[in-house]
Amino acid sequence: MTKLIHIALIILISVSFSCKEKVGNAKVSEVVTEVKNDIERIEPPNWWVGFKNQQLQLLIKHPNISEAKASIKYPGVSIDKAHKADSPNYLFLGLSIAEHVKAGQFNIYFDFKNGTQLVQTYQLKDRESEAADIQGFDSSDAIYLITPDRFANGDTSNDIDVNLNEKTINRADDYGRHGGDIKGIINHLDYIQEMGFTQIWSCPLLTNDMPESSYHGYAMTDFYQVDPRFGTIEEYQELAAKAKEKGIGLIMDQVANHCGSQHWWMQDLPFKDWVNQQSNFETKQPLANSNHRRTSNQDLYASNRDKTEMTEGWFSARMPDLNQRNPFMANYIIQNSIWWIETLQLSGIRQDTYPYPDKMFMSDWAGAIMDEYPNFSIVGEEWSYNPLLIAYWQKGHENKDGYQSNLRSTMDFAMQNNIVEALNQEESWDKGLVKIYEGLANDFAYASPKDIMIFPDNHDMSRIFTQLKGDVPNTKMALSYLLTLPRIPQLYYGTEILMDDFAKPGDHGLIRTDFPGGWEGDTVNAFSGEGLTDAQKDMQSFLKKVLNYRKTSAAIHDGKTMHFAPFMGTYFLFRVIEGETVVHIINKNKTPMTIDLKRYEEIGLHGKTLKNIISGETFKWQDEIILNERGSLLLTTKL
Amino acid sequence: MTKLIHIALIILISVSFSCKEKVGNAKVSEVVTEVKNDIERIEPPNWWVGFKNQQLQLLIKHPNISEAKASIKYPGVSIDKAHKADSPNYLFLGLSIAEHVKAGQFNIYFDFKNGTQLVQTYQLKDRESEAADIQGFDSSDAIYLITPDRFANGDTSNDIDVNLNEKTINRADDYGRHGGDIKGIINHLDYIQEMGFTQIWSCPLLTNDMPESSYHGYAMTDFYQVDPRFGTIEEYQELAAKAKEKGIGLIMDQVANHCGSQHWWMQDLPFKDWVNQQSNFETKQPLANSNHRRTSNQDLYASNRDKTEMTEGWFSARMPDLNQRNPFMANYIIQNSIWWIETLQLSGIRQDTYPYPDKMFMSDWAGAIMDEYPNFSIVGEEWSYNPLLIAYWQKGHENKDGYQSNLRSTMDFAMQNNIVEALNQEESWDKGLVKIYEGLANDFAYASPKDIMIFPDNHDMSRIFTQLKGDVPNTKMALSYLLTLPRIPQLYYGTEILMDDFAKPGDHGLIRTDFPGGWEGDTVNAFSGEGLTDAQKDMQSFLKKVLNYRKTSAAIHDGKTMHFAPFMGTYFLFRVIEGETVVHIINKNKTPMTIDLKRYEEIGLHGKTLKNIISGETFKWQDEIILNERGSLLLTTKL
Repeated sequence: MTKLIHIALIILISVSFSCKEKVGNAKVSEVVTEVKNDIERIEPPNWWVGFKNQQLQLLIKHPNISEAKASIKYPGVSIDKAHKADSPNYLFLGLSIAEHVKAGQFNIYFDFKNGTQLVQTYQLKDRESEAADIQGFDSSDAIYLITPDRFANGDTSNDIDVNLNEKTINRADDYGRHGGDIKGIINHLDYIQEMGFTQIWSCPLLTNDMPESSYHGYAMTDFYQVDPRFGTIEEYQELAAKAKEKGIGLIMDQVANHCGSQHWWMQDLPFKDWVNQQSNFETKQPLANSNHRRTSNQDLYASNRDKTEMTEGWFSARMPDLNQRNPFMANYIIQNSIWWIETLQLSGIRQDTYPYPDKMFMSDWAGAIMDEYPNFSIVGEEWSYNPLLIAYWQKGHENKDGYQSNLRSTMDFAMQNNIVEALNQEESWDKGLVKIYEGLANDFAYASPKDIMIFPDNHDMSRIFTQLKGDVPNTKMALSYLLTLPRIPQLYYGTEILMDDFAKPGDHGLIRTDFPGGWEGDTVNAFSGEGLTDAQKDMQSFLKKVLNYRKTSAAIHDGKTMHFAPFMGTYFLFRVIEGETVVHIINKNKTPMTIDLKRYEEIGLHGKTLKNIISGETFKWQDEIILNERGSLLLTTKL
Repeated sequence: MTKLIHIALIILISVSFSCKEKVGNAKVSEVVTEVKNDIERIEPPNWWVGFKNQQLQLLIKHPNISEAKASIKYPGVSIDKAHKADSPNYLFLGLSIAEHVKAGQFNIYFDFKNGTQLVQTYQLKDRESEAADIQGFDSSDAIYLITPDRFANGDTSNDIDVNLNEKTINRADDYGRHGGDIKGIINHLDYIQEMGFTQIWSCPLLTNDMPESSYHGYAMTDFYQVDPRFGTIEEYQELAAKAKEKGIGLIMDQVANHCGSQHWWMQDLPFKDWVNQQSNFETKQPLANSNHRRTSNQDLYASNRDKTEMTEGWFSARMPDLNQRNPFMANYIIQNSIWWIETLQLSGIRQDTYPYPDKMFMSDWAGAIMDEYPNFSIVGEEWSYNPLLIAYWQKGHENKDGYQSNLRSTMDFAMQNNIVEALNQEESWDKGLVKIYEGLANDFAYASPKDIMIFPDNHDMSRIFTQLKGDVPNTKMALSYLLTLPRIPQLYYGTEILMDDFAKPGDHGLIRTDFPGGWEGDTVNAFSGEGLTDAQKDMQSFLKKVLNYRKTSAAIHDGKTMHFAPFMGTYFLFRVIEGETVVHIINKNKTPMTIDLKRYEEIGLHGKTLKNIISGETFKWQDEIILNERGSLLLTTKL
C-alpha cells in the first residue's frame, strides 16, 4: 500500500464518518415502494427541503404511540429526539433535515416492545419558489376582503357535508351557512382584477366543524384541512395559482390565539398545558374569558393578574385559548403557518386577535416566518384607536419595554375612525376634517406608516355606507381619501355596491350579507351589473377608476405626502414623486367653492395641467379652482 | 541686562499681552464712584458673574445710540462686538465676561462723533446660590396655581396705577382688575403651607400695560418689570424668600411666544424682524393669527404653509408674535429667563404656549437654562389630549424627526380629560373607569411619566367641580386619584373650597373668581374657614389631609405603580416602595361594595394593617374589603 493511497483511505473514512454524523440514525437509506399510512394523524402532513431552519417537529397521534420507538432511514434526515407528551397517544418527533437533503419519501417506523411495527410514509417536497420570490403585499397593493361563505357559491355540491356538525344551509339566516366557497371566488377573479384589486384576503377557509355559526371561520377545528363546504385544498391551490396569473396575491387569515371547541385534539389533549385553563375545561368548571384588556400588553403598570387574564383567558367559551408557551404548541403554530405559505404560495398572512396570544411568542412566530421569507408580509389585527398601540406592534418601533415586534403591518383603526368622524361631524375648530388632518399627523409615531393597513370597514364592523349614514358623496370622499393615503388599503367585498347593515347596524351576520350575483338565481348581479341601482353602478365605476389608477401610481405607492390644514370645509392632500403628483381634495360644503390656489403654491403645480381621475377632464392649475358641492376631487399630473 | 532678566521681561510682556486679550478694551480699570444713568434703557438691567456662559448681550436703547462707540474699563469684561440694529435707537453690545471676573460696578461709555459722551453704570453681582442648589420642582411636590389678581389683595395702595392704561379696579367685572397682589400671596403663605402645597405657580406678575383685561398677565409690556398693581420687585423677592423659608418653591410663569401690543418696543422696533408679521402691523394691514394647528410641529406631512402660519401667526391681535429666529431676540429671551431665576431664586418656570414659538429656539432656550441650572425644572404648556404630543416635548423622548427637547416636564391634558370622563361617564365596556385605566397605560410612551404635570383644571379651564357637574364625591375621587399618580400634581386656588363656574361654564373671567377672604370685608373667609359651607370645609380638610400625607410619601413620590382593570365599578391603584404601600380605591357604585381581595394578592398586603389617610381608621387587609358607596379610599401601610 503506498502512502498516497493510505491517505486517500483516511479521507474516505472521514467522509463516510461525517456523513453518518449528518444523517443520524439513517445508516442505510431505503426506497419507498409503497405508501404506508398506519398512523392516525401526523402533522404537518408533509414538509419541504431547503428551509433555513433545519428542525422539524412532527406531531404523531396514534393510540399508545408514546410506547413506540421511532426510526427513519433517509440520508440527511435524523430523529434528534422523540418527546413523549402527557397523553400516551402522542409522540413529538424532533427531526433534523440536513442542508442538502433531497426531496423524496421515506418511512417512519414505530416499533413497539411487543414487536408490533407501524409504518408511516412521509414526504419531503421540493419548494416551488425561491424564498425571496414569495413576495408580500405592500402599499402598491389594494386588498379585497371576502367572507367566503357570503361571496359566491361556485359549487353547490359542497354546500352540505353530512360528516360535519352543522348540516344545514339557510341563506335566510344571517348566522347560518349560505354556501359560498372557494370555487365562487375562482369564478370571479376576473371581476376582482378588473375592479383593480391586487390582493385577496379571504376570511379563514379551514374547517370549522362547530355546531352553529361555523360560516365565519374563526373557530378552527383542524389547522391542516380546508373546510369541505368551502372546497378542497386543491381548489385553494387553484385559487392561489389563478389569482397569481392575474397579478393578484392571496393573503391567508390565520389564528394563533385559539381553536374551535370542537377541534379534534380537544378530546385527547397532548399536554396538560396545551390550552390555557385546560383543567377547568376538562372538569367543566367555569372558564374565565379573556379580560380583553389589550393595553396590558404595553402598560408598564399592569398587574400580573390583568396580564394573565388577558393572555390566558379564552376569547370566547367556544374558542379554547392555545398555550403558545408550551414549546410544542409554539412549533406547531409556526410550522402550520409555513406549511400554508408553501402549499399556497401565499403573499401574506392576516393574523387574527394579535394582542391575545403570548406576545413574546407572536414575535417569535412572525420572526420565524420573516426569517424564511424576507419579502413576506404579515398584518396583525389590534383593534385600537390608539396610535401608541398601533405603533407598538410594528417592526422597527423602539418600545420602552424592549419588545421587538416582527410584524411588518398593523391595522389603522385610528384613521378609520378619524375618517368617519371627519365626514359625519359638522365642521368646527376641533371637529370634522381636522380629525383626518390631525389623525394623519400621528404618522410621525410610526416606524413605517405606508406599511400600515387602512380600511373603511371590515367583516367585524358596520359597513362604511352605514357608518356614513347612507351618504354617497361622503362614502366617495372616504374611499378615495383612504386609497390616496400612504397606506395599504383594504376594502370589504360589497363596498363597491354600497352594501349596508342599516337594518341592524353592526350585526355581524348582516354585515356579511351575500354578494348579489354570487348565487344562481340572484335577481341582482353585481358582477355583471344587472339589476344594480344607478347609485350602485356609479360607486362601482368610481372605485374601479380610483383602484385602477392607484395600481400604477408611484406617487400613491411611494410618494412624499403633504397636506394642508382644513380650510373653509375643504382639505387638500398631495402625494408627490418624481414625474407624478396626485392631489386629493375634499369639499364638505353644500355649495361649490372657489379656492385660491396661492395657499398651495409650495407644491409647485402652478401652470401644470392635471387630469381628473374620475371624469378624465383636464384642468390647468393656476390661480383658483372651483370645487363642486360635497365631494372629492382626485387629480393627477400623469395625463 | 542679564539673560535671566531678559527672559523675565519676555514673560511679563506675554502676560500683559494675554491679559489685554482677555479684558478686551479695558486696559485700565476704574472705580465707579457715582452711579450714572444716562441711557434710556439697558437690558438686562444687571447681570452676575460666574455663569458657564460667558457671553452677555446688552440691549441699549437711546436716541441715535447706534452712532456711539461703546467702551468699558473693567478687568475681565470686554465688548466683543457692538451690533447696530435696523432702528438707529438701539445698540446690542456683545460682552465677554471672563471666568474669574469679580462682582462690581463699571461704567459703559458711549462716545458720539460730535464729542458727546453718555455714561451708564452697570452692575455685575455675585450669585446668591450655587447653580446646583437651584432646585426644581418634581413629583415630591404639589403645586398651588394662583391667578394673583384674584387671590388676595394685600396692599390696597397699589390697586390703581395712574401711569398705566387700565386705571380702574372693579371686582364686579370678571374681566377687570380686582386688586389681588404679591403682598396678598405673602400674607397667606401659612395657609398654603398648611394645606400641604410645596410650590406656588403664580400666573405672570410682570407689567401688562394693556387698555383692558390686563389682570391675566399674559400680554407683557415689559419683561423686566413687576406690574406695579401687583407690587414691586422687592416684594416678589420677599415672596420667594419667605416661601422658601416655609419649604415652598416659586415657579414663574413666562411667555417666550409673544408680548402685549402695548409693549414699549412696539413703538420703535429694533429690527425689521423683531416680531413676526411686523410689516403688516406697522402698515396696519390685516394680521394673520396663528392657525393654532399645533400638530404641524410633529407632522411629517405638514406643509410649510401650515408650519409658518402656526409659528409666525399671532396668538391674538393683541399679542405680537416674537421672532425667536432673530438671534438678538433669542438671546434676549434666554437672558430674561436667567435674570429672573437669579433675581428670585426660582424653583421652576412654567412656559406658556410652548408649541407656538420656533421649536428649535425653545430647545435652545430650555437647554441654555438647564445648562446653567442642572437641577432646575421647566414645564411647558401644550394643550393636547394626544399622548404622542405630550411625549414629543419631553426631554429624553426619541423623536423620529430628531427633535431634542430640553423640557423636563410637560402637561397631562390627556389624563386630566380621562379623569373627568372616567367619573362623568356611566360604566360600560369602554366608558367610565376604563378611561383612567387605559389612559394611564399610555405612560409607556413617556420618557419620564413622573415628571409630567397633572391637574384637575387650571386658569384656562372650567373648574373641576363644574366639570364634574357639582358632584362632591366625584371631585374627591378625581383629586385624591391625581394626587396619588406618578406625576407632579397642580391644583388651582379655590379647588379646595369647591369654587365653580356654573354660571358661565368655561368663562375665563369667572373661572378666576376671587378667593373669599382675600379682600377686606369679605363675608366668607376661606383662609380662616369663616362662613364656608360644610361641604367646602370638608373638601378643604380632605385635600389638606391628602396633600400633607403626600408631602412625605416616598411611595407616591417615587414608588412603583401598579393598577388593576376596573372591576364592578371599582378601580384599585397601588404605589409601592420599600417600607410603604399606598392604595387608592375608587368605588363608583351607589351602594357599598364588598370586594374579594384575592384579586390583588400579588401586591403582598395580606395580613397587613393599613391606615385610612382621611379618617385615620385602621383596616386589616385580609379576605375582603367593604367599600362605602361612591367615593375614594386612600390607605397606607405607614401607620
